[in-house]
Amino acid sequence: MQISEKLLALRNKMDDIGLHACIITSADPHLSEYPAEHWKVREWISGFTGSAGTLVVTSEEAFLWTDSRYYLQAGEQLDSSCIQLFRDGEPGVPDISTWLSDVLMPGNKVGVNGSTISVNKMRELSRNLRTGKIHLDINVSPAEDIWDTRPPIPEETVFTHETKWNGFSRADKIKTIRENMLNNGVSHYIVVSLDEIAWALNLRGTDISYNPVFHAFLIITIDQVRLFINPHKLTAQIAKELSTDGVKVYMYNHFYRHIEELPDDCVVLTDPARINSSVFSLIPSKATKKEIPGIITIIKSKKTETEIFNLRETMVKDGVAMVKFLFWLNNSIKSENITEIKAAKKLQSFRAENEEYIGESFSTISAYGDHGAIVHYNPTSETDKKIKSEGLFLIDSGGQYWGGTTDITRTIAFGKVTEQAVNDFTLVLKGHINIATAVFPLGTRGVHLDTLAREPLWEQGLNYGHGTGHGIGFFLNVHEGPQSLRPQDNGVELEPGMVTSNEPGLYRQGDYGIRIENLILCQQAMKTEYGQFLKFETLTLCPIDKSLISKELLTVKEIKWLNGYHQKVFDSLAPYLDGAHLNWLKEKTVAL
Amino acid sequence: MQISEKLLALRNKMDDIGLHACIITSADPHLSEYPAEHWKVREWISGFTGSAGTLVVTSEEAFLWTDSRYYLQAGEQLDSSCIQLFRDGEPGVPDISTWLSDVLMPGNKVGVNGSTISVNKMRELSRNLRTGKIHLDINVSPAEDIWDTRPPIPEETVFTHETKWNGFSRADKIKTIRENMLNNGVSHYIVVSLDEIAWALNLRGTDISYNPVFHAFLIITIDQVRLFINPHKLTAQIAKELSTDGVKVYMYNHFYRHIEELPDDCVVLTDPARINSSVFSLIPSKATKKEIPGIITIIKSKKTETEIFNLRETMVKDGVAMVKFLFWLNNSIKSENITEIKAAKKLQSFRAENEEYIGESFSTISAYGDHGAIVHYNPTSETDKKIKSEGLFLIDSGGQYWGGTTDITRTIAFGKVTEQAVNDFTLVLKGHINIATAVFPLGTRGVHLDTLAREPLWEQGLNYGHGTGHGIGFFLNVHEGPQSLRPQDNGVELEPGMVTSNEPGLYRQGDYGIRIENLILCQQAMKTEYGQFLKFETLTLCPIDKSLISKELLTVKEIKWLNGYHQKVFDSLAPYLDGAHLNWLKEKTVAL
Repeated sequence: MQISEKLLALRNKMDDIGLHACIITSADPHLSEYPAEHWKVREWISGFTGSAGTLVVTSEEAFLWTDSRYYLQAGEQLDSSCIQLFRDGEPGVPDISTWLSDVLMPGNKVGVNGSTISVNKMRELSRNLRTGKIHLDINVSPAEDIWDTRPPIPEETVFTHETKWNGFSRADKIKTIRENMLNNGVSHYIVVSLDEIAWALNLRGTDISYNPVFHAFLIITIDQVRLFINPHKLTAQIAKELSTDGVKVYMYNHFYRHIEELPDDCVVLTDPARINSSVFSLIPSKATKKEIPGIITIIKSKKTETEIFNLRETMVKDGVAMVKFLFWLNNSIKSENITEIKAAKKLQSFRAENEEYIGESFSTISAYGDHGAIVHYNPTSETDKKIKSEGLFLIDSGGQYWGGTTDITRTIAFGKVTEQAVNDFTLVLKGHINIATAVFPLGTRGVHLDTLAREPLWEQGLNYGHGTGHGIGFFLNVHEGPQSLRPQDNGVELEPGMVTSNEPGLYRQGDYGIRIENLILCQQAMKTEYGQFLKFETLTLCPIDKSLISKELLTVKEIKWLNGYHQKVFDSLAPYLDGAHLNWLKEKTVAL
Repeated sequence: MQISEKLLALRNKMDDIGLHACIITSADPHLSEYPAEHWKVREWISGFTGSAGTLVVTSEEAFLWTDSRYYLQAGEQLDSSCIQLFRDGEPGVPDISTWLSDVLMPGNKVGVNGSTISVNKMRELSRNLRTGKIHLDINVSPAEDIWDTRPPIPEETVFTHETKWNGFSRADKIKTIRENMLNNGVSHYIVVSLDEIAWALNLRGTDISYNPVFHAFLIITIDQVRLFINPHKLTAQIAKELSTDGVKVYMYNHFYRHIEELPDDCVVLTDPARINSSVFSLIPSKATKKEIPGIITIIKSKKTETEIFNLRETMVKDGVAMVKFLFWLNNSIKSENITEIKAAKKLQSFRAENEEYIGESFSTISAYGDHGAIVHYNPTSETDKKIKSEGLFLIDSGGQYWGGTTDITRTIAFGKVTEQAVNDFTLVLKGHINIATAVFPLGTRGVHLDTLAREPLWEQGLNYGHGTGHGIGFFLNVHEGPQSLRPQDNGVELEPGMVTSNEPGLYRQGDYGIRIENLILCQQAMKTEYGQFLKFETLTLCPIDKSLISKELLTVKEIKWLNGYHQKVFDSLAPYLDGAHLNWLKEKTVAL
């Protein structure tokens, strides 16, 4: 079908069920960052393949809202005779509810598939539409209904993430979750997020790229664990182990029925940011809903000692791969035709030399020159560019290992560098060091520390449009909550054991992008009469390009940190390198 | 009556009206920081005179909750056979609703005088009590009902704050407020905060110490302004001027009737943080309530050009008084018996030399030695202490002038200072300079900058328990919203024209307290491709004690700021000083 035919079919369907408009999100029922093909209905209808974007269709018009990462791509992919683009965040661009309130009449009905929108977002939408007296119906799915070529839900087999890697057995995790449920007066805990389910059961999957999760739902009660998963995804061995740990298996699609049949006297934990609206609406009205952050998200954010030990080992492996890659790149660009894609593939091949490497933790951002200023750039065959022996190259990549997930960005220079690039890079480095060396009291939230990373840039009227840091899973999602380092206050306090990225940047449109990213582990620093203080340990091990650093702009303290970091990088990686690699590392880590 | 007799009378009253518990706050119907005697019912019942504290009385028990500022005072003032103390904020101390839910039975009724509690606080209380199935009644006032010796509401005459001081006529203010109302779709704006009313009408009063406000209510509609005030508070001249500007005067106590009689089709602006629950509950249920921050609070936070011009002039006057005071103190403590109270009085006498000085903007904190560590210390005849020629002295004071309100803290050393005191003072100064020199993008909130003031202290495991800065009125309340510099996020963005205090500190229990406070004006800094950036101008003019500064601990940038600041202090104040004063100022402001 052409886009126009799909829209016609959709509008007929909307007519049948009495909708004046319908909203098609890009989410799956688990509210995953990367949904499987089965749930990419917005992509199927609109032809736009970006990860973020919401399509709104009325009987007359169709608009796609997407953010600045995708303005260009959406402009190219959308058939503008059928679907127009709203550049979300640009001045004068209305939000979806404002626009709908404007084009619809009081009493009109808007439909959205409730399983593709979180409770929080549904409530905001519903509240905003209500002021225009427009009704929101979440029990419809017109786009899915007309999708004739819909791919099936992935059927991959799950596998075990052993206790030797995470130090926290499935039985102990269930016990700890139940203790937390009791403390919160909760009798039923509904788990919809795939990474929460994978973590709780020490299982992993390959249903989705980059995130080692599998499609399932979970209901934990004080005496039961019900796992909703298609049974052929489980090996006999895993099925047996689950049974031993008291986990009972049900069909994936029986989950909603179980929600409807929850007892009236139950107290259900629902995290309104992490549960879809359909599940929420099916909870019996007499049940008590306790809206608190997901228990598993909080527990899993504080890594176990075994996880921290293994993550330090993994960082050595990842650092060795990075050093081999940077050495190769430096030596090859003059003689070979190295493109962005070729570089990304080469880096993956160095990571793959490790036995414990599973795959990439996200699609590598391999960005030469002006591509570096496109914050979420992924090279495609159309955009792929030769890396020349001059200018800046930014590479943001990560690996999934049995012993943890990595995420690292390095910006390196070839040839002669400009004064502006050195100034910019050094300011970004100062912000990075401010975070790396921060000492802060218990109770500090990410919003408090974010400023430290930006302040050196602000002073010169510079800034970056993304957060300074995100939480990261352990052989799980590269982006995980609840903590972050952002100007937005999410209310979550930093706690020992949390692993977060530290990634300030600066982007010169049409010229280059700079980002320096390491992973940092929150730890106890000292206890004084003023309370308990915390600090970070930098886990990532890879040289930071000194050719882009102006020593004059650094304070004594900052130089000390950089030299200390480089010494640690050398000491940690040297035992695994020799010959030219070792010499290169030595030179790149020599004190400033 | 003895406390025990008062409690007996209160319990009889509670019995009569079917209350199982009653909550007695320390607020007036305007939710003022300093209520008049008429509203100090908690003080009358309990005998505790502190500004913060809530009394809760059941048929069996009575407890007073107060914060750390008042632990000592409450312990001394309360008759522990009748009323026990809950040290709010200490581990294990329940909050009021938790405690009530614990001691009462489901179905019980708790009373609070709705005019003494904000809508926000009432909602929180009601929500928490509801989980224990306890009902909250806000239409009772048992404590006020039994108060036989209740003082009257102050009857002082109001006076005009002329346009030459504030540059914004009453008529223009009303016009601007109405424009904002229209933009927000509001037909009726109920104003309860006394400083909002004083600002809107360019009137001031003397009903309350320190805050130049008067008791009144205001209702602004698109074509009316209704002022509720006892008419003999108005001079004939002011009554005439109000009439000219379209302000109609009603009796103070007719306000509530006007609220009840609001038309059903009106859209009422209610700021749930700034309106009491009784007023809110009287708004007809068919009226539309628009809960947004008070329009006046937002407008008045951004000072006019005239206000800024006058405030700079006022800072010179205030600085001259401070210099004369510090000079006098330095020269007198060896030969005379100077106590904390005597010092505070002397400082006031220097301020009073100015024709434009009206009075103190708050009760001076004059704290020698270990008293400095008591953050909100006010010397009393019992605690008053001789200032010796050794150790640290902290003085936090301010004046009300026709041309603005001041608030300044200086910590000065006598005799030989310890290495610890110098280290502490220098760290506090570093934090102060971090705020003074901050450059930040439009959209930045106080929560983002607060960290900059604390970070030098945090690094050494130190911290302070109060906010870094509060908004300040213009010949109005020394504490005003909406902006602040605090670890709590209040959602308010800093904007050009806002005046805020910059007052980091450090407190060594039993030893000394350090605080350095200047007022800072938010201004535009630069506009780049990354957006509009803002900065602060330090307004307060008074030397910072160099004998407490370790130059080695300061960066080049920090030394430059200090020397620049001292040069500005000298240049601004020197024309108004001569002889020994001028020599002293020169010495105190010489470059480091």
